[in-house]
Amino acid sequence: MSPSQKLNAGVIRSDLAMADGRTIRYYDSQGQVRSAKDQRPQEEQPGIGELRLDPLVNEWVVMAAHRQGRVFLPPKELCPLCPTIGELLTEIPDSNYEIVVFDNRSPSLRSPEGDWAIPDMVGTETDPGTAAGKCEVICFTDNHGGSFAQLTAQRVRVLLEAWSDRVRELSKEPYIHHIAPFENRGEEVGVTLVHPHGQIYAYSYLPPRVQKMLAVAQLHFENTGRVLFDDVVARELKDGDRIVAQNKHWVAFVPYAARYPFEIHVAPLKPVADLAGLSPEQSDAFPEIALEVMRRLDGVFGIAMAYIATWHQAPVREGRDLLRLHWQITSVRRAPGKLKYLAGSESAMGAFIMDLKPEQSAGQLRDVVL
Amino acid sequence: MSPSQKLNAGVIRSDLAMADGRTIRYYDSQGQVRSAKDQRPQEEQPGIGELRLDPLVNEWVVMAAHRQGRVFLPPKELCPLCPTIGELLTEIPDSNYEIVVFDNRSPSLRSPEGDWAIPDMVGTETDPGTAAGKCEVICFTDNHGGSFAQLTAQRVRVLLEAWSDRVRELSKEPYIHHIAPFENRGEEVGVTLVHPHGQIYAYSYLPPRVQKMLAVAQLHFENTGRVLFDDVVARELKDGDRIVAQNKHWVAFVPYAARYPFEIHVAPLKPVADLAGLSPEQSDAFPEIALEVMRRLDGVFGIAMAYIATWHQAPVREGRDLLRLHWQITSVRRAPGKLKYLAGSESAMGAFIMDLKPEQSAGQLRDVVL
Repeated sequence: MSPSQKLNAGVIRSDLAMADGRTIRYYDSQGQVRSAKDQRPQEEQPGIGELRLDPLVNEWVVMAAHRQGRVFLPPKELCPLCPTIGELLTEIPDSNYEIVVFDNRSPSLRSPEGDWAIPDMVGTETDPGTAAGKCEVICFTDNHGGSFAQLTAQRVRVLLEAWSDRVRELSKEPYIHHIAPFENRGEEVGVTLVHPHGQIYAYSYLPPRVQKMLAVAQLHFENTGRVLFDDVVARELKDGDRIVAQNKHWVAFVPYAARYPFEIHVAPLKPVADLAGLSPEQSDAFPEIALEVMRRLDGVFGIAMAYIATWHQAPVREGRDLLRLHWQITSVRRAPGKLKYLAGSESAMGAFIMDLKPEQSAGQLRDVVL
Repeated sequence: MSPSQKLNAGVIRSDLAMADGRTIRYYDSQGQVRSAKDQRPQEEQPGIGELRLDPLVNEWVVMAAHRQGRVFLPPKELCPLCPTIGELLTEIPDSNYEIVVFDNRSPSLRSPEGDWAIPDMVGTETDPGTAAGKCEVICFTDNHGGSFAQLTAQRVRVLLEAWSDRVRELSKEPYIHHIAPFENRGEEVGVTLVHPHGQIYAYSYLPPRVQKMLAVAQLHFENTGRVLFDDVVARELKDGDRIVAQNKHWVAFVPYAARYPFEIHVAPLKPVADLAGLSPEQSDAFPEIALEVMRRLDGVFGIAMAYIATWHQAPVREGRDLLRLHWQITSVRRAPGKLKYLAGSESAMGAFIMDLKPEQSAGQLRDVVL
């Protein structure tokens, strides 16, 4: 791979090797050249995990036992996602950065060696597979105390370019079938590092939820000749009362059948399959609506909201014309001192109960004064 | 309904009306006659919620906005599940009880009025349905500070009889299609009342997870002529290394592809469809293994474990020979100070990542000295 390459929007990517063989990629907007060397001693990488079939629902479960010992809520002075400034040699060797993406040190999924194939999914006789795939960490800012909502529009534009670049590159790996960039924010959703960052999971199988979305979209297409998600967006635009924000290229809405007290879907008005398919105009219009949505979310109760923000995309190798790119933000915060938990009904039965009507939460989000 | 009736194992059930028209049922083993009157003023019951179709996955979501104001972690002296002894008039009018079951005051699902039918599930055009069903609360003991693990074997036997009785009776309602008795325990899983109790959700639709389990079991039956869950139990008995406890009629194991750090399935060795189908011998052998499993769970870290314990059963009106009764206990506690959270991969993608191998957690459970 070339050490640096030009992407859209003036972004330059520089690739460097880490001490243990992983790769770190800097995404910069000011023409920086990155060369800081990882000074840490070499370290053996953990082995690959196991894929086991849960026969009762025919779904893969990843067994990654080596993750049990991973870093857990370190204090700021031991944060591995800060740039390397003092004595602590962090994951990022340089003394500053805009956006960086590096291979996860405790990956749930990793690149397989040699020939690789996923086992058939058959009842209780299936052999375990290897947990092939790729897990990357993406840092949004070198400011430990920041947040997505506090990024500049320009930084969000670089972030979007980095996400798109990762999707383009990971899609080329023959063992990768689905890519999900996501951000977990808040100790309430189990974040183990508070430094603003996200993750990119590239799966070697269709995640169960994607598999179901694809089957349902396929059925809808056979019944109507139309793409399901396009109909969903058309209905939200027509109903209007669940829309939270809108600009020339994007719309943000609380879905008609939201499952979480606060749930927002952000979709391009002209549908695309994945992040790599966004036009420059769509990409340039994203930071405005992304920041508005995140600031409205933090504004509802005047506190930093815990959330999970995930890019849903079409799978890499199938259903490219059936599933659509959208950014799904869900929050379990239902009141300042109260969370929604997935308990008996949701967890064991998959049956979601919502305490807040989507029209009501959309109204609360719209009412936030920015 | 008759005010009292005899069940198995010498259990007597007495039904009484509550002030607001709900019903409370006492299950007693010592021949008690219950007659304490609910002294509270009449209260209007909340309206019925809405069923909305999430078109992206073709699943119902219940909208029950009236639940937002429900009681949240009251102190012991205000506990609505304690018997009525002092001035506070609780949900249970009598001054003591063994097991009681009463209609939930803030039900997610409630009995429909008049003719009722669930709408078709079709794309984005589906009208909302009414959230028909029934939600009941089941209290395990009048001892506020107790727990399931601390119950006597005799009390667990009465509890099992009460569960079975509820399943038998609720199955007769024409609008009920699936019944799930469950217990949420611990603030970590969102429990709003600490008094030892469970809930019974009776759905007017097949919960999404049951729907998937049924489809997979159907396919397995077509492929093999065998019932999937029977094959699962046979494999666990053969492998042996994930078994946690066993007696003449039941086996408890960590499933091969467990999704939670601690997950135990308890199944009768002679399969049955639901709680109502258990033989007297099976029922009498349940308390021993149930208490052993719960005490092992609390023993792993020497702390009260948060868990969700759910009875999986065959649906009421279909798949009676395809799905089997089993008790699923899942805990998000992965270490004394650490929980497993359902974040980006699990929540948005449905792709579970496990940090602990099932053989390892089964070993930890077996090693607990009782």
